[in-house]
Amino acid sequence: MSSIASSPSQDTLLGPLPTSLPAVERRAALPAGFVAGAATAGIKPSGRPDLMVVATTRGPAAAAAVFTPNPFAAAPVRLSREHLAQTGGSGGPSACGWARAVLSTSGSANAATGPDGDLDQLTIAGFVATALRAPIEEVLCLSTGVIGVRLPVERVGAAVTTLAPDGLSALPSALDAAALALMTTDTTAKVATTSLQLPDADGRPVAITVAGIAKGVGMIHPRMATMLAVVLTDATIEPDVLAGLLRPAAARTWDQLSVDGDTSTNDSAIVLASGAAAAAPIEAGSAGAAALGRAIEAVARDLARQQAADGEGATTLITCAVSGAPDDADARAIARAVVSSSLVKTAILGRDPNWGRIAAAAGNARAADAAVLEAAGLRADEAASRAGRPVALDPDRLRIAIAGHVVYDGRAGGPVPFDRVAVGAAMAPPEVLVRLDLGSGSGRGEAFGCDLTEGYVRENAEYTT
Amino acid sequence: MSSIASSPSQDTLLGPLPTSLPAVERRAALPAGFVAGAATAGIKPSGRPDLMVVATTRGPAAAAAVFTPNPFAAAPVRLSREHLAQTGGSGGPSACGWARAVLSTSGSANAATGPDGDLDQLTIAGFVATALRAPIEEVLCLSTGVIGVRLPVERVGAAVTTLAPDGLSALPSALDAAALALMTTDTTAKVATTSLQLPDADGRPVAITVAGIAKGVGMIHPRMATMLAVVLTDATIEPDVLAGLLRPAAARTWDQLSVDGDTSTNDSAIVLASGAAAAAPIEAGSAGAAALGRAIEAVARDLARQQAADGEGATTLITCAVSGAPDDADARAIARAVVSSSLVKTAILGRDPNWGRIAAAAGNARAADAAVLEAAGLRADEAASRAGRPVALDPDRLRIAIAGHVVYDGRAGGPVPFDRVAVGAAMAPPEVLVRLDLGSGSGRGEAFGCDLTEGYVRENAEYTT
Repeated sequence: MSSIASSPSQDTLLGPLPTSLPAVERRAALPAGFVAGAATAGIKPSGRPDLMVVATTRGPAAAAAVFTPNPFAAAPVRLSREHLAQTGGSGGPSACGWARAVLSTSGSANAATGPDGDLDQLTIAGFVATALRAPIEEVLCLSTGVIGVRLPVERVGAAVTTLAPDGLSALPSALDAAALALMTTDTTAKVATTSLQLPDADGRPVAITVAGIAKGVGMIHPRMATMLAVVLTDATIEPDVLAGLLRPAAARTWDQLSVDGDTSTNDSAIVLASGAAAAAPIEAGSAGAAALGRAIEAVARDLARQQAADGEGATTLITCAVSGAPDDADARAIARAVVSSSLVKTAILGRDPNWGRIAAAAGNARAADAAVLEAAGLRADEAASRAGRPVALDPDRLRIAIAGHVVYDGRAGGPVPFDRVAVGAAMAPPEVLVRLDLGSGSGRGEAFGCDLTEGYVRENAEYTT
Repeated sequence: MSSIASSPSQDTLLGPLPTSLPAVERRAALPAGFVAGAATAGIKPSGRPDLMVVATTRGPAAAAAVFTPNPFAAAPVRLSREHLAQTGGSGGPSACGWARAVLSTSGSANAATGPDGDLDQLTIAGFVATALRAPIEEVLCLSTGVIGVRLPVERVGAAVTTLAPDGLSALPSALDAAALALMTTDTTAKVATTSLQLPDADGRPVAITVAGIAKGVGMIHPRMATMLAVVLTDATIEPDVLAGLLRPAAARTWDQLSVDGDTSTNDSAIVLASGAAAAAPIEAGSAGAAALGRAIEAVARDLARQQAADGEGATTLITCAVSGAPDDADARAIARAVVSSSLVKTAILGRDPNWGRIAAAAGNARAADAAVLEAAGLRADEAASRAGRPVALDPDRLRIAIAGHVVYDGRAGGPVPFDRVAVGAAMAPPEVLVRLDLGSGSGRGEAFGCDLTEGYVRENAEYTT
C-alpha cells in the first residue's frame, strides 16, 4: 500500500490526464491549533486501539462535513449533523458550523441501534465535552464497525477520560496513532499531508498545512462521502466558505471511490480549520480559497487512492482516467462505472487486458446523483435533469489504453492488435491505469477502485461486519 | 438448479408476497406453428452445440423484443432492431415487427467488431433467410460470448445449411436442444412453459402455450433485457399489442435480475406469436391480452429465477420480496438494491443473518431508469422525475425477515432478538428469501440475485469472456 504513488503514472498516451493538484506526502503532520490522540476502549475484539480524538487548542475551529445520504444514517452521523446545525445553522448532508473536537470509535457502527444508540452517542459526546471543557454541541462524532451493535458506553467514557486532555499531543505521532485507531478491516493506516502558502494581513507568505487521515475499506461506493475521513488545516476561514471548498473536492475524490458498490450508514468526511496560522482570513472566491480548495482536494484524492488500494481483499489499485468527454461530470460517471464493474475488477486480478469488459462497463455509465452533480458545479436544474441518466458514448470515437498500451481505437475500426502477454505483464500491482478518451469534448475525470478477489469474498462471507 | 422452485417459498410473515402468476413447468414445449433445432458450428472452443434456430412453419410471427441500452450494442442487436424496424416500424430498445426465424450463436458476442462484424452478421442472417426461403428482414439474430472476436462466418453458414430446414423439428426435444445451444458459462439449460385458455371466434376455449428458453449467467444486472431469451406462443396478436405485454413483464422480471452488476452488450429478449392456435386475435386491453401478459410474465419470471440461481459461481438463489412500499416501482428498486449488494451476497454465502447489510443496501436504493419506469406503467413525466432518485425508506417503519425469521422491526425499536444459529441454518441453498416490509403503502416488488463466491472471482479472473 505504501508503494502506491500519490499520483497515477503519468501516461499521456491518449492526451492529458484529469488531475493537476499539489503534491502530497504520506506522512502525518498536525496543523497549528490541533492535538490528537488514540486509546483502546475495548470495542474491537482484537484489543487494538479503537478510539481517537482530535481537538483544537484555541477555541472552536470552522468545520465543514459531508455525510452519508443513507436513511439508515448512524447515531454518530445524526449527532454530528445536529451539532453542526446548532453551531452553524446547516445540518444537511453537506453541513458546516464550529467544532472543538472529533471523536471516533471503531468496532461498532452504532447504526440501527434505535433511540438507545442515539442516547449512547450523546453520552459519549458528553464525556469528550466534559474532558475538554467544551460545549457539547462543539463535539462531532464518527463511528465505524458492525451495524446493530451498541457501543460499550462506560468503557468508552473511561478511555476518553484517560486520554483527554492530557494524553492528547501536537506531535505527528499523535495523528499517526489517531489514523491507526480509525481502522477496522484496513490493513494500513491512511494519512496524507500537503502545504500551501497564503498571505498574512500584510501580504507576506505564511505556510499553511493541510493534513488528513481516513479509513476504508468495505461498504464503499461512490456517493457523497463514502468512508470516514478527518482533514485538518491551520488556515483561517468561515464554515460556509470551507463547506464550499469541501463539496467539490469530495465530488472529485471520495465520490469517485468504489470498493464494493455498497454505501455505508456511517460515511463522514470532516474538515476542521483552526485559524491558528498567521494567514489572513480566506474570503469566498479568492485566490487563497482556490489554493486551499486544491490542497484539500489533493489530500482527499490521495486518501481516496489509499482507501481504494486497501480495499478488502484487493491486490491492485485501479485508476480509471477519462478525457475527451462532453463535460467533467460525464467523464467522472464513466470512470466510476469502469472501476465499479465486477468484470473489470476480476479481469484486472487475472491480468487480462479485456478491453471488451471496459467498453461494456463504460457504456453502462449513469450520471451521478443530483446532489453530487450540484456539488461538482452544475446548476440545480441541470443536475436534476441529468441525475441517474445514461451517459452518451460513441463507440466509433472511443479509445482505450490499459497500463500504457492502446488496445481499442474506435476511430481506426475498433480493436487494435496488441501483444497480450506484454500488456498482461504491464498490468502488475500495485496499480493499473485504465485510460479512456471519448473524443467528444474536453471533459476529464477519474475514479479509484480495486480488483475483486477471493480474499474479498472470504473476508465478507466469514465475518459479520 | 432444478431444485429451485418456480415460486419462492410462500412465507407471508410480513404480509402478502408480490407475485401471483400462473404456474410454470420446467419443461420445453413448442407452441403450434414453430420448429427449432441446434447445431455445432465450432464457435465454442469446447466443441459443444453453439448455434440454434427457432423458425415459424406458416409465415411470419408477430414479434416483440427488448434489447440492451448499452451504446456498445452488438452487431446482432443492431441487426435485429433494424429488421424489426423494417417489418414493423419500431426499432428502438423496445421494438416490434414480424419475424420468421431467430438465430442464436454462442461463443462470440460479435460486439465491438466494427463494420466487419455488422457485415458478418448480415451474411449469417442471409444464410438463414436462404435456407428458410424467408425475406432476410424476417430473420432476427442473437449472439453471446467473448466481446471483440469475430464470428467464423463460413462455419456458421455450413451449420445453418445443414440444420435448416430439414433438421428443425416441432418435438419438445428440439427446444431443449436449442436451450442447450444458447449456453455459455451456464451450467444448466433454462426452459419454462405455461399455458392458458383463450376463446376462439365462437367463444369456445382454446389451449394456448407460452414457452421460453434463456441463458445467463454473467454480465447480468437490472436494466431492460439483461441476457438472451426467446419466448414462443401460438396466440394470435398484433406486434404492437405483444410489445405492450412484453415491456411491463420484462420490467417486473428480467429488469429485476442481477448477477454481477454489469449490463451486457448483447442483451435481448424476443417474444414470437405464431397465431397457429385457433384462438381469436387478441385485442389490446382485453381480458385475453391480460391473460397472455400474465403467462408471458410467468415464463419470464421463472427464466429469470433460473438465471439468477445459475449465476456464475453461485450456490444460492437470493429472492428479495418487498411489500408496504409507496408504490410498486419503489418496492422493485429496493428489492434490486438488496440483491445487487456485494455485502448481502457474501453474507448469504456465509449463512450470516446480517440484517445490517440488508438495511444499508435498502437505504441505498435508487429508482430505475426512466425507460424501465415507463415500461412499468408510470407516466413519462413521472418516470423522468423519478429516474435514478433515492427511494424513501423510514427505518422506524421497516421490518426485515430472513429465511422466515423476523430479525428487524423498526416499529418495535429496531433489532429483534433471534437465534443466530437457527436462522443461519435456515439460510440454506438452493434459495434464501429476504423479506422487507416498508410499512408505507401497498406497493410490492421482487428481485432475483445470487450469492457472490470465490468461484465467481476465479471464473472471471481466469478466463476471457
